[in-house]
Amino acid sequence: MTLTTQRPRIGIIGTGAIGGFYGLMLARAGFDVHFLLRSEFAAVCRQGLRVDSQVHGPLLLAPVNAHRSVADMPPCDWLLVGAKSTSNADLAPLIAQAAAPGARIVLLQNGLGVEDQLRALLPETLHILGGLCFIAVYRQAPGVVVHQSGGAVNLGYHSGPASESAQRQAVVEEGAALLRAAGVDSQAMADLQQARWQKLVWNVPYNGLSVVLQAGTGALMNDPAVRELIVSLMNEVIQGAAACGHVLPEQYAQTLFSFTEKMPDYWPSMYLDYRERRPLELQAIYEAPLNAARAAGCDMPQVRMLYQALTFIDRRQRADVPAALA
Amino acid sequence: MTLTTQRPRIGIIGTGAIGGFYGLMLARAGFDVHFLLRSEFAAVCRQGLRVDSQVHGPLLLAPVNAHRSVADMPPCDWLLVGAKSTSNADLAPLIAQAAAPGARIVLLQNGLGVEDQLRALLPETLHILGGLCFIAVYRQAPGVVVHQSGGAVNLGYHSGPASESAQRQAVVEEGAALLRAAGVDSQAMADLQQARWQKLVWNVPYNGLSVVLQAGTGALMNDPAVRELIVSLMNEVIQGAAACGHVLPEQYAQTLFSFTEKMPDYWPSMYLDYRERRPLELQAIYEAPLNAARAAGCDMPQVRMLYQALTFIDRRQRADVPAALA
Repeated sequence: MTLTTQRPRIGIIGTGAIGGFYGLMLARAGFDVHFLLRSEFAAVCRQGLRVDSQVHGPLLLAPVNAHRSVADMPPCDWLLVGAKSTSNADLAPLIAQAAAPGARIVLLQNGLGVEDQLRALLPETLHILGGLCFIAVYRQAPGVVVHQSGGAVNLGYHSGPASESAQRQAVVEEGAALLRAAGVDSQAMADLQQARWQKLVWNVPYNGLSVVLQAGTGALMNDPAVRELIVSLMNEVIQGAAACGHVLPEQYAQTLFSFTEKMPDYWPSMYLDYRERRPLELQAIYEAPLNAARAAGCDMPQVRMLYQALTFIDRRQRADVPAALA
Repeated sequence: MTLTTQRPRIGIIGTGAIGGFYGLMLARAGFDVHFLLRSEFAAVCRQGLRVDSQVHGPLLLAPVNAHRSVADMPPCDWLLVGAKSTSNADLAPLIAQAAAPGARIVLLQNGLGVEDQLRALLPETLHILGGLCFIAVYRQAPGVVVHQSGGAVNLGYHSGPASESAQRQAVVEEGAALLRAAGVDSQAMADLQQARWQKLVWNVPYNGLSVVLQAGTGALMNDPAVRELIVSLMNEVIQGAAACGHVLPEQYAQTLFSFTEKMPDYWPSMYLDYRERRPLELQAIYEAPLNAARAAGCDMPQVRMLYQALTFIDRRQRADVPAALA
């Protein structure tokens, strides 16, 4: 534990937009950050990691502690997982291998149940935390990330060796302090599941509608019919959360809606996944919440409809991809 | 009335797939059929009207009583309106001009409230009937229609000089007999509104989903998630109908679903409208039923969501069209 509190070593698993942004911020603050890279390895070795931030200005990290294989990475005290939740099962052995004893694994992913899935595949000695990112960021090219706005990461403890509430809180506070030291706003959350449901209130309407309607937030928020639909979907998610025991703050839908209205036009990550022909994160963002709400006696008919439409679109797209590329 | 019962003259307003098919069938049976044509006038004068029927074989009507202007048409005892319901307001004066005294106007259109809209714009001396077509047919080229399957037209009386039930029934039976004489299966319906709701059970899911998911009935019926969604949408329409006082036959959703499963792959008319950049028939097929159900205390949340998505798609497409083409 001494290592951890003095100068923790941080590993980034999945150096896309999210992993790239937070990894760069932490490295700039002097942390020893190591990046696991696949397709972007050569580009990052050659030109470094770039974040064109509309908040902080242009940022460049070069050279980068870039690793093509997890076997080359030193053991990390913190692992930030920025990869898509669709690949969690494949990532588990890599995470276990990169983790120092007692490491903290932070899933910077959307949706519900992502920690449960990894928990079953990781040693009990590892802490798992969930991190909810409030950020508009996308990958522009290999090694180049565009940061449009936001950046906060709220952390909550999921499971692991910290059995007492105070211990869990200490681990989470440690992570939040680490992010804040890197200039990233971060709060410790008492209830990770509640926080995940809160984030779903945004992700469920905007991610799905961006794919079905092929539109960014600007166009969606500009249409009176879609505005009504967004509010209606948000309210279903809030009812689903309540059925699962998570009463969200009053006016929460209205708050997110007004916030999105003021955002610059944004293409949610699911749209980018669709455009890049990657599998959509339907399990974590739709199926798991629908199942949880249904188990608690709550139907979410419009969320279900959106999920069904997305399932069709995702299946068709994957069927279209030649096997060699899939 | 003598004219009508002896050898009625029939006018076709809107010679697209529907108008072209039924007009040709009636003309082949020896009726005096006159077609009002716009963009297809030259092609039809040159090559006649062709129906490539997968049921009856290739059919050709030549020469055609084709008219470019309603002013050139003789007064018609029956007028079959096959134009899109989106143009009804513009068609009313043309219909009034082409109609013989006491003529019967049959709206071969989908949706709810289409007769109400025209009623307000036509003289009281004209009968208005609704005709529900159970047919898979599309326009392939100017003057060329492809008939895939089906063909029945069920008729119901909406409003007009026939005030007594028996009189109304007589007018409807007369129309059904006329169609049957042309080899078209036709039944008189006691309750037009009920019949319109029944047809909506098909049109609401398949028309809308074909546009939102860019898929024909074959692909829609092949996907397990979309199959569930279709049944769910059908059941909402059935509940909406019941709230409005129209109890549909038991197992009606299942009947239509199984029927569609056996159909050859079919691209619903709304998809063809979308592809041809025509306005979508959202008012008649979605907005009017939603309003009627809501007024009767019934919400149809998934139908509403489909309508909202379609509204967005329709608006965007029309905004994209240069003004000169709109």
